[in-house]
Amino acid sequence: MRNITILIHCEDQKGIIAAVTNFILKVEGNITYIDQHVDVDQNVFFMRLECELMNERWNVESIKVDFQESIANDFKMSWQLYNKDQKPKMALFVSKYEHCLFDILGRYSAGELPLEIPLIISNHEDLKPIADRFNIPFHHVPFNKENKIEGEKQHIALLQQYDVDFIVLARYMQIITPQLISLYKNKIINIHHSFLPAFPGAKPYHSAFKRGVKIIGATSHYVTEELDEGPIIEQDITRVLHSHSIEDFIMKGKDLERIVLSRAIRLHAERKTMVYSNKTVIFS
Amino acid sequence: MRNITILIHCEDQKGIIAAVTNFILKVEGNITYIDQHVDVDQNVFFMRLECELMNERWNVESIKVDFQESIANDFKMSWQLYNKDQKPKMALFVSKYEHCLFDILGRYSAGELPLEIPLIISNHEDLKPIADRFNIPFHHVPFNKENKIEGEKQHIALLQQYDVDFIVLARYMQIITPQLISLYKNKIINIHHSFLPAFPGAKPYHSAFKRGVKIIGATSHYVTEELDEGPIIEQDITRVLHSHSIEDFIMKGKDLERIVLSRAIRLHAERKTMVYSNKTVIFS
Amino acid sequence: MRNITILIHCEDQKGIIAAVTNFILKVEGNITYIDQHVDVDQNVFFMRLECELMNERWNVESIKVDFQESIANDFKMSWQLYNKDQKPKMALFVSKYEHCLFDILGRYSAGELPLEIPLIISNHEDLKPIADRFNIPFHHVPFNKENKIEGEKQHIALLQQYDVDFIVLARYMQIITPQLISLYKNKIINIHHSFLPAFPGAKPYHSAFKRGVKIIGATSHYVTEELDEGPIIEQDITRVLHSHSIEDFIMKGKDLERIVLSRAIRLHAERKTMVYSNKTVIFS
Amino acid sequence: MRNITILIHCEDQKGIIAAVTNFILKVEGNITYIDQHVDVDQNVFFMRLECELMNERWNVESIKVDFQESIANDFKMSWQLYNKDQKPKMALFVSKYEHCLFDILGRYSAGELPLEIPLIISNHEDLKPIADRFNIPFHHVPFNKENKIEGEKQHIALLQQYDVDFIVLARYMQIITPQLISLYKNKIINIHHSFLPAFPGAKPYHSAFKRGVKIIGATSHYVTEELDEGPIIEQDITRVLHSHSIEDFIMKGKDLERIVLSRAIRLHAERKTMVYSNKTVIFS
Repeated sequence: MRNITILIHCEDQKGIIAAVTNFILKVEGNITYIDQHVDVDQNVFFMRLECELMNERWNVESIKVDFQESIANDFKMSWQLYNKDQKPKMALFVSKYEHCLFDILGRYSAGELPLEIPLIISNHEDLKPIADRFNIPFHHVPFNKENKIEGEKQHIALLQQYDVDFIVLARYMQIITPQLISLYKNKIINIHHSFLPAFPGAKPYHSAFKRGVKIIGATSHYVTEELDEGPIIEQDITRVLHSHSIEDFIMKGKDLERIVLSRAIRLHAERKTMVYSNKTVIFS
Repeated sequence: MRNITILIHCEDQKGIIAAVTNFILKVEGNITYIDQHVDVDQNVFFMRLECELMNERWNVESIKVDFQESIANDFKMSWQLYNKDQKPKMALFVSKYEHCLFDILGRYSAGELPLEIPLIISNHEDLKPIADRFNIPFHHVPFNKENKIEGEKQHIALLQQYDVDFIVLARYMQIITPQLISLYKNKIINIHHSFLPAFPGAKPYHSAFKRGVKIIGATSHYVTEELDEGPIIEQDITRVLHSHSIEDFIMKGKDLERIVLSRAIRLHAERKTMVYSNKTVIFS
Repeated sequence: MRNITILIHCEDQKGIIAAVTNFILKVEGNITYIDQHVDVDQNVFFMRLECELMNERWNVESIKVDFQESIANDFKMSWQLYNKDQKPKMALFVSKYEHCLFDILGRYSAGELPLEIPLIISNHEDLKPIADRFNIPFHHVPFNKENKIEGEKQHIALLQQYDVDFIVLARYMQIITPQLISLYKNKIINIHHSFLPAFPGAKPYHSAFKRGVKIIGATSHYVTEELDEGPIIEQDITRVLHSHSIEDFIMKGKDLERIVLSRAIRLHAERKTMVYSNKTVIFS
Repeated sequence: MRNITILIHCEDQKGIIAAVTNFILKVEGNITYIDQHVDVDQNVFFMRLECELMNERWNVESIKVDFQESIANDFKMSWQLYNKDQKPKMALFVSKYEHCLFDILGRYSAGELPLEIPLIISNHEDLKPIADRFNIPFHHVPFNKENKIEGEKQHIALLQQYDVDFIVLARYMQIITPQLISLYKNKIINIHHSFLPAFPGAKPYHSAFKRGVKIIGATSHYVTEELDEGPIIEQDITRVLHSHSIEDFIMKGKDLERIVLSRAIRLHAERKTMVYSNKTVIFS
């Protein structure tokens, strides 16, 4: 049996759900998941649908053509149709922090993540031994203000060479270039170690400590040109006490970063996220 | 504009969603909410749908008749259709604990609950002054093992007199009779002061303290004949420390009971709950 | 038996704990709670101690004199000693929002709060019926930019008349004057409806909605001259979904505001808070 | 500078804190942490204290002798004094589940855990490649009902050979023998995949699914002869929805198991746990 996932968004109109579900009926699909969301203020409709194709005579490519012609044109839809069995390819960008890298590679090795990791890219060589330990190709691409242009070229060449679908910045401490952002729009996931929009930028744990907050957080978001301002995918928090030092904040924060980033990766890889107006729709 | 809510459940079959959404299209309804759930193991389909009726010529009663004939018969559906503007009537049963009563009446007076409270019933007179303060009729119905039958008669008479839709036991410390349960099947909501199925029955905070748990909880569920075994609507928890006494557990637990019960009341009153196999589907 | 609570802070020095516990031994006190905190960076020591006085011949006033002479002078301590049986008096300031008021008065009536509420002050008359319902004196003091000076005079006169120990702003929508803040330093508690420092100022739920956060919060803090910048006493959060409207945020936020404010009130009334460097030490 | 940690428990008596802090003063220690707990019902006193030894002339061994003679004898204390720089040695027992193993080894490699892992013991060979990847000696000790006695002998020999201080069962699916339990009393940590005491024993996620709970949990506890009945060290929970399958429960549960077990390991390794009456005191 073949499973497909369809993501749709368009202006909200009468009859969309009926039209889509009638179409699935026509191609002999059995709907196993359907969820929709309407942004009433902006009059935008979003839908996520999973179905099993029950009859061999309908193949995915012909369904795509048919869907475009018989539905999408009429409703002026933006849509994607994914074959669930094709795992997306994820590039990992890292610098020197190892906790998120260990966590992701551990989950990956344990078969918990529905994706492939064809390569790891880093501006430092420090974490190469970890990549080696998990047998993932590791590419050292020096990257800083001075060699940005050369670094960007290498990044893009590598991403194309490995046919990468999306990028995860696992505490990668460099600014992503606008060109790379535009090539991977809403496909670069960052983990920021604060409860955004509180404490954007550098050293958020130090700022949180200074402010005397009782709760710290971590935020996973898509990268946009505005630093730490992109659409939020997932957030979580943990309590802190007056007795905790900055080191305690950092240690507790690492657990948050791991969990929040891995949830965001899973949501993206399962095609459960849609982006609009700098916000996300997250299907559960 | 008139708003309706439809709840459906039936055996899972191809084409249900298409049929229902086509029907809504026919009666010129604008779907503002649709969610469905399929229990794959048991092959049961559940749907909740809200829509605005855009055209005056479709009235609710004729829609009901039409829905039964053109859809529900074919799919052998169980279904309810509610006019959203008709608030359900809730009877409150209390004994001597006042914290949930104060919380519910405070929310009710502040206009936070989409329901009406026509009466409060109690086996004691202790809380009458609170009912008076909020101007809610208070009925004292003595109830214990000895006068069960007489008490039950009075309960049923009062519930019928006030045209009650559902019952909330706000720390009412008596066993509900099987007859009343069968009259209000899946319409009696209890709050139990533990994280069920841990610590059913009496004195759960004492048991939790003795066991040395690090987290305590509260559980709201529909009442069935098996004590504390009914379908769970909502649960929540809070952390406890070794330094907390049983009195601290009880105090912290009161906050949980208030929150969990009020969430369950809201979910039920907004018709966001469906029951099957001693479990609930909770639409968000 | 008499119970006392002692709060101490001073420069960190060797021997403080030994000196204090020796003193308690001398006055035949039985320590039932002791906790301390050292801010290592700033070299400040904090302690909270509860004890039962076992021997009638030691009275609270003579203990105070003795403590000052035999301990506090040597260590240059700031300290307070409270008789636990004397409940602090709390003034409630409200405007038009009723949810926190109902919650506090419900808890107060149920005997859950270790304090007295001698009066409610408001710049509007809307909530007077609620105060009446709970038999609390309600004083209408019009307050806005124009009549600030006159209003402040009335506030201070009322607070003195009722011998008020601390003030709670239960969604009171006015700026507190610097004079009142200085009279009640670290004794005015506000509830802000966001997870500070995110979304200070007006309409935080609207800002949170626009930013697309996945978690909203509430923050209770002591009022200082910098708006929403005072020492944080307590924070909590709840999850939100893309499907939630601003109205849903507000409704869920009300639950947070109630809980967070009532926890902060209890902490303050039980003398479990100490303030320094715009932060709080919260003893558990 | 040398740092020591002292854990004390004894019958509650007047003057303990004064005596202990006077002693620390005498040996020129600077207290950096002190916390105490009194179980009022059982009249038991607990204390945890950290200090820096400021003067070279006091060595740890002579302090121990002095403490026993000048304090512990008088108060009939049970006590331990640890040199903070000596990391405890932890043996890992695993079977076939790899998620907790990956998580612990990742944290260990990243330097997050204040302990040493000299060996991994398993009743299967499946996870040997992971141990190899992290360069930890892996010992395959077949263990089941038939070869229990032989297996136990090997376990004990290995634990002695590697000088193991405590044992962690990282989803080790075998019953620990009473002899091993008595050798490592309150030193064997298990992770159970439910919110105990709900759902003890096998297949707790299946039971939770069947019961229709809205929250699932994980519990880390010391192993005693009563299965899943030992003193609880740490618990945590996560929400589940009606739309989640058993597989979803298991996946979400894995995150809980990882987090809860790693917190318990850290607490034990930092000597922040004390056990009595089948409960734990957890110092923060």
